[in-house]
Amino acid sequence: MADEENAYSFTTQATREQRITDFDGGSFRMWHGGSLPELTLAYESWGELSPAADNAILIFTGLSPSAHAASSSQDPSPGWWEYMIGPGKAIDTDRFFVVCANTLGGCYGSTGPGSIDPASGEPYGADFPDVTVEDIASSGYYLMRELGVRRLHAAVGSSMGGMSSIAYGMLFPGEVDYLVSISAAASALPLTIALRSLQREIIRSDPDWNGGRYTDDSKPLTGMSLARKLGLVSYRAADEWNSKFDRSRLPPAELTGARFEREFQIENYLEYNAQKFIHSFDPNSYLYLSRAMDWFDIAEHGGSIDAGLGRLDLRRALVIGVTTDILFPARQQREIADHMRATGTDVDYVEIDSVNGHDAFLIDDAHFSPVVRKFFDQSRTG
Amino acid sequence: MADEENAYSFTTQATREQRITDFDGGSFRMWHGGSLPELTLAYESWGELSPAADNAILIFTGLSPSAHAASSSQDPSPGWWEYMIGPGKAIDTDRFFVVCANTLGGCYGSTGPGSIDPASGEPYGADFPDVTVEDIASSGYYLMRELGVRRLHAAVGSSMGGMSSIAYGMLFPGEVDYLVSISAAASALPLTIALRSLQREIIRSDPDWNGGRYTDDSKPLTGMSLARKLGLVSYRAADEWNSKFDRSRLPPAELTGARFEREFQIENYLEYNAQKFIHSFDPNSYLYLSRAMDWFDIAEHGGSIDAGLGRLDLRRALVIGVTTDILFPARQQREIADHMRATGTDVDYVEIDSVNGHDAFLIDDAHFSPVVRKFFDQSRTG
Repeated sequence: MADEENAYSFTTQATREQRITDFDGGSFRMWHGGSLPELTLAYESWGELSPAADNAILIFTGLSPSAHAASSSQDPSPGWWEYMIGPGKAIDTDRFFVVCANTLGGCYGSTGPGSIDPASGEPYGADFPDVTVEDIASSGYYLMRELGVRRLHAAVGSSMGGMSSIAYGMLFPGEVDYLVSISAAASALPLTIALRSLQREIIRSDPDWNGGRYTDDSKPLTGMSLARKLGLVSYRAADEWNSKFDRSRLPPAELTGARFEREFQIENYLEYNAQKFIHSFDPNSYLYLSRAMDWFDIAEHGGSIDAGLGRLDLRRALVIGVTTDILFPARQQREIADHMRATGTDVDYVEIDSVNGHDAFLIDDAHFSPVVRKFFDQSRTG
Repeated sequence: MADEENAYSFTTQATREQRITDFDGGSFRMWHGGSLPELTLAYESWGELSPAADNAILIFTGLSPSAHAASSSQDPSPGWWEYMIGPGKAIDTDRFFVVCANTLGGCYGSTGPGSIDPASGEPYGADFPDVTVEDIASSGYYLMRELGVRRLHAAVGSSMGGMSSIAYGMLFPGEVDYLVSISAAASALPLTIALRSLQREIIRSDPDWNGGRYTDDSKPLTGMSLARKLGLVSYRAADEWNSKFDRSRLPPAELTGARFEREFQIENYLEYNAQKFIHSFDPNSYLYLSRAMDWFDIAEHGGSIDAGLGRLDLRRALVIGVTTDILFPARQQREIADHMRATGTDVDYVEIDSVNGHDAFLIDDAHFSPVVRKFFDQSRTG
């Protein structure tokens, strides 16, 4: 079960907090309306920004990771994308200045529903404005500007992070040269909306959610655990579990004997991973970011997928799908690649035959590193 | 949304209750230990038993249906398998005496956790003994004996009902001639166990479940609704929902405006179907029958799938899989058919390319009727 460990690295010694107050003369205006007077984004970085400021790569995360994507001298603990980012790795920090921020709306140091609302002096909770993928992309733009970067070498992300990368390209055409989108979607399909809606309803049905008003001591942990288990079911692939767990049972000493209690190892696996997650993650952040993924729709940028992707002004894109992903299936990745190509973007499409489902990018070094390495080996700065 | 309506017919005017007290000299002994002093099975029947008592077909249900599989003169309302059972239909009631019972452990008239425990005078609740697929099969055997049938022409079922049909054949070799198993499993895979375990935990986490002690006025409806929604997600197929719902939204008049509330039609569909279900179904029955499916394992009958299926003594079997079933995938049906064949059973295997996923047998008349009709056209009584 070690393979998910890295996804749960939180704020580390290497994490810095960037307060942002300048949004081209005004507050941070959000895609669905509402605004924030200022933002804080927690981020980590690796490598050095070149004098021309032309070697920056911004990593957008999925729903749950922190900014700690990789280890560094300040914090040697492995990050959630440790195999991908580092000196000589596929995203080579000897060459690039790599930045990963905890997402806007998240709970590992960035502004989100757990932040204090200056109007009330209390946490925003469910009064935080709607968070969209577009807002996440925009917040990344302003962060990079604070760090001295105007034009990105690349925006990179998987799952919600892939959507954010695409949104970045559409919102800031010409200000990013390369784009990597892994297991994202032009828009969510009904099955995926159903799974996420159900997770949110499970959390909201926990009496401790209390309309989004809870304290650290009264978080809706039962709802979070059940929602996380449903997430885990959707992130992985049936065949992986068949070979890993099959029908193996708990040892007799671990059976409580209580009716309907855990008996199979797969039930224990879900419990173990849910418990590891729920104490650190903010339930309201989960709700906001989950809904953001339902809402994202490239076609809202001009009326069609072609209109949206036609706004891209890239040197090249890399789109990656995973054959066993049931949440964002490979054909949704082909759809993105096909429409990019049809609207004038040079695009590499790679379909990876991994057993790890939607989570493959977190785990499957052997399949992912060569593909991303090749893409950046051919990218040029300046 | 009419296509699921029929699955929610409950006890009707045509339903009779058969009390069974004779189990070959003793109480009804259960597969996991424990026993019941007597059983009541609610059933309906169609057609007439032949003088030789050799034309009986027993239909085993999935988790939730009642005995009302088809309409009759006593109750003209459509049953849950209306298209399949009737005069001149694929399971032809002009030719066969067809019986469908509410399952042991169920809540539509048959003995289950909602029944009164004679020892306490209260409903059994979670004190009801473990229910297994084998117990369901055995209870069907004793019911048919009460109805004057010793040897079945056929045992037929889908999902849990398919498992029950196979169990019938293994437990009573030579006492059933034909077997139809649709979308069942030789044993549940980890993904399926995970999905069901999560449904059960959702119900048990509802404070109103109260360890299985609730009244009609205090049922764990929130947990049941969430669990049912998760069930619905697993019963259907992504592509069906893509064409049916895509990303269509609720009309503005139906939006509450509350944060995280339903916005997409797919969310409304789940809510509508969950509400239709939860007021009639007993939560403890759901827990017991759900666990029974996790436990079922043909290999427990002799040490291997071949040993178990080698116990069958049939004239012929029909095994049907559905290409889009994610809960009991088609390859699990091929596995059953292959092992039947390897152990000497004549078997027809048919893989149906339906868009309706695990629920296809309830809906997809056009694909299912011809296959089942052909099988019974070639069956012979006597």
